[in-house]
Amino acid sequence: MTAQPSALPAFSTRTRDLHASPIREILAVVDRPGMISFAGGLPSGDSFPRLSLDTMPQNALQYGPSEGERPLREWIAADLRTRGLDCTADQVLIVSGSQQGIDLVAKLFIDPQTPVAVESPTYLAALQVFRFFGARLLAYDAEAPDTASFVREKPAFAYVIPTFQNPSGRCLDAAQRAALAASLDEARIPVFEDDPYRDLAYDPCERTPLCARLRRTPWIYQGSFSKSLAPGLRLGYLVASPELLPFLTRLKQAADLHSNRVSQWVVLQQLNDPARHARIDTLVASYRARRDAFEQALRRHFGDIATWRTPPGGLFFWLTLKERIDTRALLPKAIAANVAFMPGEPFLPYEVEACGQLRLNFSHATAEQADVGLERLAALVRSAS
Amino acid sequence: MTAQPSALPAFSTRTRDLHASPIREILAVVDRPGMISFAGGLPSGDSFPRLSLDTMPQNALQYGPSEGERPLREWIAADLRTRGLDCTADQVLIVSGSQQGIDLVAKLFIDPQTPVAVESPTYLAALQVFRFFGARLLAYDAEAPDTASFVREKPAFAYVIPTFQNPSGRCLDAAQRAALAASLDEARIPVFEDDPYRDLAYDPCERTPLCARLRRTPWIYQGSFSKSLAPGLRLGYLVASPELLPFLTRLKQAADLHSNRVSQWVVLQQLNDPARHARIDTLVASYRARRDAFEQALRRHFGDIATWRTPPGGLFFWLTLKERIDTRALLPKAIAANVAFMPGEPFLPYEVEACGQLRLNFSHATAEQADVGLERLAALVRSAS
Repeated sequence: MTAQPSALPAFSTRTRDLHASPIREILAVVDRPGMISFAGGLPSGDSFPRLSLDTMPQNALQYGPSEGERPLREWIAADLRTRGLDCTADQVLIVSGSQQGIDLVAKLFIDPQTPVAVESPTYLAALQVFRFFGARLLAYDAEAPDTASFVREKPAFAYVIPTFQNPSGRCLDAAQRAALAASLDEARIPVFEDDPYRDLAYDPCERTPLCARLRRTPWIYQGSFSKSLAPGLRLGYLVASPELLPFLTRLKQAADLHSNRVSQWVVLQQLNDPARHARIDTLVASYRARRDAFEQALRRHFGDIATWRTPPGGLFFWLTLKERIDTRALLPKAIAANVAFMPGEPFLPYEVEACGQLRLNFSHATAEQADVGLERLAALVRSAS
Repeated sequence: MTAQPSALPAFSTRTRDLHASPIREILAVVDRPGMISFAGGLPSGDSFPRLSLDTMPQNALQYGPSEGERPLREWIAADLRTRGLDCTADQVLIVSGSQQGIDLVAKLFIDPQTPVAVESPTYLAALQVFRFFGARLLAYDAEAPDTASFVREKPAFAYVIPTFQNPSGRCLDAAQRAALAASLDEARIPVFEDDPYRDLAYDPCERTPLCARLRRTPWIYQGSFSKSLAPGLRLGYLVASPELLPFLTRLKQAADLHSNRVSQWVVLQQLNDPARHARIDTLVASYRARRDAFEQALRRHFGDIATWRTPPGGLFFWLTLKERIDTRALLPKAIAANVAFMPGEPFLPYEVEACGQLRLNFSHATAEQADVGLERLAALVRSAS
């Protein structure tokens, strides 16, 4: 995609960096009969509630405010206050899923060569968008932040997934959150906190938003209804320090006027449904069981060739192989053997030849499938080493 | 918004051009009790169908393809073929409303200083997005295209609304469409055709997509379900020449992964509903009656101070006042007198001091409201001249 065939018209410079997403390419084959997929981050379809529009007011079909529906914004702000983040409904902007939030924040901050601080590894679709707008990516260690380097390199913002990080599964503890917030505050680096997995907690752990600990620097917190409710509704939200809201709202308006109002109505009904807590508890219990079964299978097949940390929440195991092979080269062989996974290299902010790491989703496959798929995958790793 | 207070972090260069939308600012006051609004382009709420999700498959709540649902893409391609545009479902990309289509096309083509050809006047939110990405706007006359200037100035694309243009209401006839297509083809200027109003036709007129007449140059045709079905569903589509589709699809994926699947399912049901044609006929008849009543009121109150062409479709009258006043200055006085309209200046690609033109929506106000509102507005124009 770097060189354009002559039949194509002249595209923007940023389009040269517009690569097909590895996730997208893999999702195109995971529906193949017999495929065992550890690739995606799809929530379990069993958990989706039945939806009804029977009591929806017809004016939900009219154009609406760019900020989103007031009652939904009120609900979100109240919920975040119980989680420790001091905010009001005026600070909430409803977006068409988390991916749109990433696009809006990138538009707000990133020019060609703008430095942006990211974890390594981190969510690959965020890296894609930041690169697309021209960011110069700087890796930082969220578990041991270096204030001097933040001050020296002055990134436009720091992107962070403190809770059940994608892909690593790591959850920052209270002391780590305090230290990272203090460092970013001191260096006055704006913070973009992405928090889609917070409700998928299998072990007790700290989940207070990092943004709740900031005192001086501007911040944007992002939440999603894709993992705890349903991704097909494409609904998420940004909550930001007040000075950023007018800019984000205008960017939202220019991007798609406002978010789907039927989804906003449906989501608010679901949030106010007393059965919601039981539904999420069931979902969490089922994912916890899958995580545990998956880890047992990992021990059987990968115990001697890889290391990992048990993810206390979220959807992924992040494996570090003892041999540092290029896991991208492993993928076509795995697909041919009917097992799909995500190579680790696209999650890194810098080009590397081989990182010997890979991401495995544990929420989609059954325990039996996990055992079979991991056995096949381990055999391929052994033959590649 | 051009200078940033020192409390704000460093934003991207493009954010400096991020102005509040005049439409948005006006929509914030049109709900005021007693206000007669000619400002927005809101469809009549009476026309919205009752929606039900009772038979929706639960997998519509899962993540879906970035291109959109296959059956909906098939329906759209088949419909466009009956309208004269030769295309297949593979060329269709479902988007989250037309505004997103504009964002994606701008991302694909526009760098800072990229020339973009636009009509004057044209849709103001398109101008906003093109400017936001740094476009250098070049005005062209869609009724009398100048091939030599297209060749000389080589715009990255030409944006055109051939049918019931916003704001002018103009519909290009068959000869004009043929001439414009030939000119753009000869100069090899990619075409971005925006066609949200085509179903709102009150008089017989040519509506074959301009893109249907292109033979050599790349093209993107955009349609919307906001005007003929319901804007709250936020659903539209791009159809493009095959070489552009992979790029647009990746841009879509980076923007919001995919469009709302509940909306896609609902829209497909509605498109297949036998009652649909009767619903649109009723809508069109009601808008035609409002247009005619509005024009009678215009003749009474503006007959001696303005000229206009009767719009054969769409939602707007475009008035040219005999005195070339700054209609932006007129707006606060009109709002104070409880009548809202859209000043003409934001629809122009170049800065002007005063264009003496304004856009009046006729689909929202009743005949009585139109008469009262236009009388008030005409009095303000007379006192401003």
